[in-house]
Amino acid sequence: MARFVVVALLWLSLASAQAADPSGMIVYQTDFGLRDSAVAEMKGVAKQVDRKLELFDNTHEIPPFDIWTAAFHLAHLVPYWPQGTVFVSVVDPGVGTERGAVVAKLKSGHFYVGPDNGSLTLVAEQIGIEAVHAIDYKKHRLPGSENSHTFHGRDIFSYVAARLASGQVPAEGFGPVLEGDVVRIPYQHAEIKDGTALGVIPILDINYGNVWTNIGRTTFEKLGIAKKEPVRVQIFDGETKVHDSVMPYVDTFGDVPEGDPLVYVNSVDEMALAINYGNFAESHKVSSGPTWRVILSRP
Amino acid sequence: MARFVVVALLWLSLASAQAADPSGMIVYQTDFGLRDSAVAEMKGVAKQVDRKLELFDNTHEIPPFDIWTAAFHLAHLVPYWPQGTVFVSVVDPGVGTERGAVVAKLKSGHFYVGPDNGSLTLVAEQIGIEAVHAIDYKKHRLPGSENSHTFHGRDIFSYVAARLASGQVPAEGFGPVLEGDVVRIPYQHAEIKDGTALGVIPILDINYGNVWTNIGRTTFEKLGIAKKEPVRVQIFDGETKVHDSVMPYVDTFGDVPEGDPLVYVNSVDEMALAINYGNFAESHKVSSGPTWRVILSRP
Amino acid sequence: MARFVVVALLWLSLASAQAADPSGMIVYQTDFGLRDSAVAEMKGVAKQVDRKLELFDNTHEIPPFDIWTAAFHLAHLVPYWPQGTVFVSVVDPGVGTERGAVVAKLKSGHFYVGPDNGSLTLVAEQIGIEAVHAIDYKKHRLPGSENSHTFHGRDIFSYVAARLASGQVPAEGFGPVLEGDVVRIPYQHAEIKDGTALGVIPILDINYGNVWTNIGRTTFEKLGIAKKEPVRVQIFDGETKVHDSVMPYVDTFGDVPEGDPLVYVNSVDEMALAINYGNFAESHKVSSGPTWRVILSRP
Repeated sequence: MARFVVVALLWLSLASAQAADPSGMIVYQTDFGLRDSAVAEMKGVAKQVDRKLELFDNTHEIPPFDIWTAAFHLAHLVPYWPQGTVFVSVVDPGVGTERGAVVAKLKSGHFYVGPDNGSLTLVAEQIGIEAVHAIDYKKHRLPGSENSHTFHGRDIFSYVAARLASGQVPAEGFGPVLEGDVVRIPYQHAEIKDGTALGVIPILDINYGNVWTNIGRTTFEKLGIAKKEPVRVQIFDGETKVHDSVMPYVDTFGDVPEGDPLVYVNSVDEMALAINYGNFAESHKVSSGPTWRVILSRP
Repeated sequence: MARFVVVALLWLSLASAQAADPSGMIVYQTDFGLRDSAVAEMKGVAKQVDRKLELFDNTHEIPPFDIWTAAFHLAHLVPYWPQGTVFVSVVDPGVGTERGAVVAKLKSGHFYVGPDNGSLTLVAEQIGIEAVHAIDYKKHRLPGSENSHTFHGRDIFSYVAARLASGQVPAEGFGPVLEGDVVRIPYQHAEIKDGTALGVIPILDINYGNVWTNIGRTTFEKLGIAKKEPVRVQIFDGETKVHDSVMPYVDTFGDVPEGDPLVYVNSVDEMALAINYGNFAESHKVSSGPTWRVILSRP
Repeated sequence: MARFVVVALLWLSLASAQAADPSGMIVYQTDFGLRDSAVAEMKGVAKQVDRKLELFDNTHEIPPFDIWTAAFHLAHLVPYWPQGTVFVSVVDPGVGTERGAVVAKLKSGHFYVGPDNGSLTLVAEQIGIEAVHAIDYKKHRLPGSENSHTFHGRDIFSYVAARLASGQVPAEGFGPVLEGDVVRIPYQHAEIKDGTALGVIPILDINYGNVWTNIGRTTFEKLGIAKKEPVRVQIFDGETKVHDSVMPYVDTFGDVPEGDPLVYVNSVDEMALAINYGNFAESHKVSSGPTWRVILSRP
């Protein structure tokens, strides 16, 4: 993803005058779903802090407790928003325990407010973190919420994000610099080995069943496979082989007949698998996460 | 919930300069789901009334026709938003019949626009209603919508809410004062009886399967059960006992091992049941609504 | 739908001062679902183009690849929004192939940005198209997105819509006038024949299971069936008869007992079928689309 993100950020830095200041915009992502008032409570708190704030949503359908998926969607989204945007991510199974709560300033000029539980894993790698402050949430929380221990998304993170995004408190005003690194989830990085490209399936393009990999286009191109040539695709869940077949490397879905599989470059410049007008993940029982490995090679 | 709401509203009244005037913000909740254009039609109508309005969403995934759940999410959300916010709630199985349609001014300085069908039950109890006006919807409806009888959410409620929120028409301008009380759904209130705490399960924290009760923390504390001590939890659906077990009273999920049950104080200062990294409601086949009773006691 | 839309647009044209200029508002609809960051990426791109833009959502739960349903929800929604609103519709199975990508100026003063793949079928019929320009997307796309072939919604359509909605580029600035007509999906139009009203089921009112038809109220009234009189309802999927029964023509759900079926005029002034407090589509296994035909007649 690195190369593509750099290009997007370059454009972004030209387009945006105020590089590093919070911009008055907050984007929320959670595993709350949309079936109750939780997301709207977070937004109401932000609007009480400052009526001028603009509030947006990334997905709220992250599978409950799935910090990896939160990390993925966050890192994925950040580069497309103006610098100064504050991102709040609340997938927080450790809420109310001693897990950290942080405000992070990213190297791209964006901000993160949320738990320090691995949610920053991919942001730290792909975008970079300039500074992290541990939130002192005895001082920085929704007034009156002291007895509420299970909804930091509303009581702490949205409140802090709103104070940050509105310019009322700078990032460093919420608490001391975090000692050590943010929490990171370990996973297999993409690499070329013995003439094959190794990686994982970080996520499914869930609505269509397309299977994404973390193998970047430029990494894949080292195999020397040209457009329209065949690719061998092997997929493993842990040590179990789940899939092994050959399909062409093409530009887009319509380049193969309906029902046929394909390898293509997805919207973040990484290799992906699909079936034209079909659902690859469902057809071949493929899922995603750090345990799902993929090998691409010449047949 | 009462005590907690009072604290939140206190902060709110300090934070908000214009206590009682509509603020230009509308929050919608419905049972429409998000699979068609219904919600967006309501918003378009509001934007036609006044381009400057800000439009927000509470959940649109209320189970179809479930007025109780609408009442719950409404009462739950209101205290977190700035005074002057107009709430539109459309769970309206009686649309087009003689059921009332009202504009209500709440004691908290917020406004309600929607059917008078029980949706105000919990708002009336927990927040209080200052004045209710029956909407004269021969006069106050989207021009051209006279032959449309099944979508008052768009044709009447969103139109009226927009006229109210923009300041074009004051609450009392939409029709006469409602005679008598708003419609209320009867249910078992929380109480201490024979050394046990009685209540109902008003709602599930649906995305996690946590079971909420209407037994407030201060009511529960009259049982004298300290943190880390065991609690006996009995759950009934009507007269059928569905669950009976003992679990500890703790601060938060991570205070018990994964897979273990717990009693905790939820984000509205009421007692709730959960399984750490699990789904209590699914595991024990527990649902919610006025018929679901709960008894908490010392083992 | 024609008559009703005319009334709504009349009001709209009176209410709206700036008839034909883009208004700074974009409404998105897609088949992306809300489980990943795709929708938020589109919005971030728009906000990078112009921070002042207001961004709204129609449904994102259109069934994957279902261009007909996209066409329906689009045509349905447009009349309720202020003139100058820009609609982006991305149900785009042909993304990256030679299918057209267009900016269309509607006769109602609204704008469309998206694929030319049938999505404009019902807008073209019911609202009318004033001008269509083929997007030259070598020139008009998110800078840095040249290697991304599968997400035109973000890389081209949202970027173009933002440039249009902000007034940076006029509709005719994105490319040459489209030669010929936009792509249209063929389907059975409503008509009276041998004393019966013929039509299709363009969509289900999905959250309630109500069955909509494309037979307008004024067409139906030619059968001379008065309120409270019985109607024979026949439903076919292709040539297979799926349903045949008699139910009363009434104003609204509550005019029949719970569990009883009814014929009524829906919120777009067309005939529809429902079960009071029930789900007609599920009970009778009825779905929607061009192959689903309906016949209404006197018993």
